[in-house]
Amino acid sequence: MSDTISEPTDLRGPEEHDIRGQIVVAAAEHFRRYGYYKTTVSDLARAIGFSKAYVYKFFASKQAIGEVICGQCLDRLMVEVKEAVHEAERPQEKIRRLFSTAAKAGLNLWFHDFKLYEIAASAATENWAPVGRYERQIEALIEEIVIAGRQSGAFERKTPLDETTRAINHALRPYMHPLLLEHNLDRADSAPLELASLVLRSLAP
Amino acid sequence: MSDTISEPTDLRGPEEHDIRGQIVVAAAEHFRRYGYYKTTVSDLARAIGFSKAYVYKFFASKQAIGEVICGQCLDRLMVEVKEAVHEAERPQEKIRRLFSTAAKAGLNLWFHDFKLYEIAASAATENWAPVGRYERQIEALIEEIVIAGRQSGAFERKTPLDETTRAINHALRPYMHPLLLEHNLDRADSAPLELASLVLRSLAP
Repeated sequence: MSDTISEPTDLRGPEEHDIRGQIVVAAAEHFRRYGYYKTTVSDLARAIGFSKAYVYKFFASKQAIGEVICGQCLDRLMVEVKEAVHEAERPQEKIRRLFSTAAKAGLNLWFHDFKLYEIAASAATENWAPVGRYERQIEALIEEIVIAGRQSGAFERKTPLDETTRAINHALRPYMHPLLLEHNLDRADSAPLELASLVLRSLAP
Repeated sequence: MSDTISEPTDLRGPEEHDIRGQIVVAAAEHFRRYGYYKTTVSDLARAIGFSKAYVYKFFASKQAIGEVICGQCLDRLMVEVKEAVHEAERPQEKIRRLFSTAAKAGLNLWFHDFKLYEIAASAATENWAPVGRYERQIEALIEEIVIAGRQSGAFERKTPLDETTRAINHALRPYMHPLLLEHNLDRADSAPLELASLVLRSLAP
């Protein structure tokens, strides 16, 4: 451990949690500015003012830090999508909001405001845990909307629920998945709503 | 020009065409084996037994050769998709064939048999001319199927034709576009048909 850097050594529960949080906040800022790929744990430690060994006490690797950041971002994204969906009353409007908000929030997160694309790309390529969690949450949200729409009589009930849910997920995926969205940027404004309309025509009773 | 390599120097129409063809065939074989990215025009010339200067008489760059190969592949792919679609009688079956054949033929071309993924990736990223042509042909084919389905009464006629065509194209695209297909390989067997079924539900009158 570097002797020029003062570090707390007595790690108990809440403090440990605070220091992890501090590292994550500083790392996210650093990744945003310099990118995820070319940043090393040494760079991060230097930027935060900790030694590399000290950072390794809290995180086994750069990826472990990336996964926490990725998880926090996807949690925020999910909150945004759920709020937009739950604000709408009619099931049809819920479907439209799902498509438009998921695409818009993804664009903001990965390509505009936060520039966390490199983390998202690693997460998607290497199938980090938060990605699988997010995908399951989106699937559950689609199922919830379809069930509510079927119960209210707004949506058809002939197609098996799991097939309908999966197919809507296939249609939405290219505008949620950062590596797919990257190649759909030129149509990311119009396509999600046109797909939502197609999905709604498919759901008509 | 190398004096160890004998090359025809009198270039008239048909011969010139033959030599271009020879270079393209040899280059495609070379790209398949060694990849497109790391092959140079010098490598190609050496493999074919021509001088680099001689290859440059026919093609301005490696990309120019790549574009011809890409165009030939997409033409074959288009023939395969059109045949599958035109063989089917019912408009519903045409939609199913469109989705399944486009995905299967793309998989074979870019990932299995031909290993031309690197050319396809460059073509898609840099928007080479054959890609735009292929996309317009696919859009025209979708429109043709929808019009025939509307005329026969199999498909609804309320939605504007261009919106229906575009939306089906959005749904199909992730399984046609090599850079998107790359991230959909795990679902490339089942998703195209589930999307086709969703599209058919959306087209029901």
